Amino acid sequence: MHIARYEFDGEIHYGAIEGDTITRIEGSPFDRIELTSHPIPLLNVRLLCPVHRPRIFGVGLNYIEHIRESGSKTPEIPLLFMKPSTTAIGPGDPILYPKEAQNLHFEAELAVVIGRAARRILKQQALEHVLGYTCANDISERVIQSAEMEMGSLLIGKGYDTFCPIGPVIATGLDPTNLRLGARVNGVDRQSSSTSDLLFSVADLVSYLSTAITLLPGDIIITGTPSGVGPLVPGDEVEVFVESVGTLQNTVVREQ
Amino acid sequence: MHIARYEFDGEIHYGAIEGDTITRIEGSPFDRIELTSHPIPLLNVRLLCPVHRPRIFGVGLNYIEHIRESGSKTPEIPLLFMKPSTTAIGPGDPILYPKEAQNLHFEAELAVVIGRAARRILKQQALEHVLGYTCANDISERVIQSAEMEMGSLLIGKGYDTFCPIGPVIATGLDPTNLRLGARVNGVDRQSSSTSDLLFSVADLVSYLSTAITLLPGDIIITGTPSGVGPLVPGDEVEVFVESVGTLQNTVVREQ
Repeated sequence: MHIARYEFDGEIHYGAIEGDTITRIEGSPFDRIELTSHPIPLLNVRLLCPVHRPRIFGVGLNYIEHIRESGSKTPEIPLLFMKPSTTAIGPGDPILYPKEAQNLHFEAELAVVIGRAARRILKQQALEHVLGYTCANDISERVIQSAEMEMGSLLIGKGYDTFCPIGPVIATGLDPTNLRLGARVNGVDRQSSSTSDLLFSVADLVSYLSTAITLLPGDIIITGTPSGVGPLVPGDEVEVFVESVGTLQNTVVREQ
Repeated sequence: MHIARYEFDGEIHYGAIEGDTITRIEGSPFDRIELTSHPIPLLNVRLLCPVHRPRIFGVGLNYIEHIRESGSKTPEIPLLFMKPSTTAIGPGDPILYPKEAQNLHFEAELAVVIGRAARRILKQQALEHVLGYTCANDISERVIQSAEMEMGSLLIGKGYDTFCPIGPVIATGLDPTNLRLGARVNGVDRQSSSTSDLLFSVADLVSYLSTAITLLPGDIIITGTPSGVGPLVPGDEVEVFVESVGTLQNTVVREQ
């Protein structure tokens, strides 16, 4: 099932997409999914970020080929950080290029949407706690990111408002172990890989994070980016795609 | 004014404390503060973490004497990280000593509670965006923290559930530039300093964070810890105090 959060007639709801229609879900997809009986044309609605102001847990250096290209040591534990909820934007929303930015990069990622609250989730049961999967773009300002990571922390370089496009839908029922994913900039392929190249799998990450942190419904884990990251400048159109999910498209706009 | 979030008769409200009574605030202290007319005895209520599941922005190496004791280089920009909302607990709540912990430390800190949403706040206007101040204890597991910071990031070492006691009240109308603060463990003084020793002031931090991040009402900035940090073990009672705010007391309990 493809679940979307959308605006229609000034109201915000969750719905299930079938073909070119969307049917409203009563309540929240994090509870029981119950559809109303009135599909409306998908063209009439605006798709939003699939979760409002989510907690976002990010992972660095998690694709084997990307670790190689960056010349970094292979992490022995996941390299984890948070992106503030205010980084989250939806499909079609502008990525604001900050005044301070010198080297903005796209990063195509598989995003995991947590469905049920839990702590200390066993790896074998981790995927039962996932509602579904979507695309994310872990926008990063490399100059600030490097200065921060040299001190041993990371927030501003990945934390500017609009630095985390997410969407367009939450796809349920997927096996996350071998999904193609990638990025295109202005229509040109820039990243192309598969989640089979992940160092720490989705199940590893859900389990590891939850040793410390009670994961909550709507939490989003962005699982790292494959090789091929590169710069964005104002005016660029960037797309992130994940197999069986779809394409997340955003345009870079200079901050006024 | 001392504002507290509290539970009384199964309901949760904000209230204003005067002497040994508390008077319920209509609505939220982040809007206009309007008191009801029925004070109740403070003894009858349970004080809670002043904000429910806040975004918590942390600062490392921000007291000059603490930078000296840790042998670190003085940061040129604030060393920033986030603690997940699930770290937040209130006065009297247990700090859970995780199974994996080898070296748990307390860190007494001045916590800033943001009152109004804003982006790119000028330093001269920064304090106008603050609702008030409280105490925080930035509990840290040093072995995991070091392993993470060596890779250039920081989450789990400071991110376990219960790793951020906050409270007991939000004190409004304070000048944050010279407040005494410190920590006691089992009644023995362990940290004692003043916010006059801060490298980046409260106004600096609010302004710097907001260059990138729209700060929201209820966001909490924990501003770093002075010298004298040290270990905690199960059974320890730890107190954090900030002048004109009060004392935040919690006990360390082994995770079952």
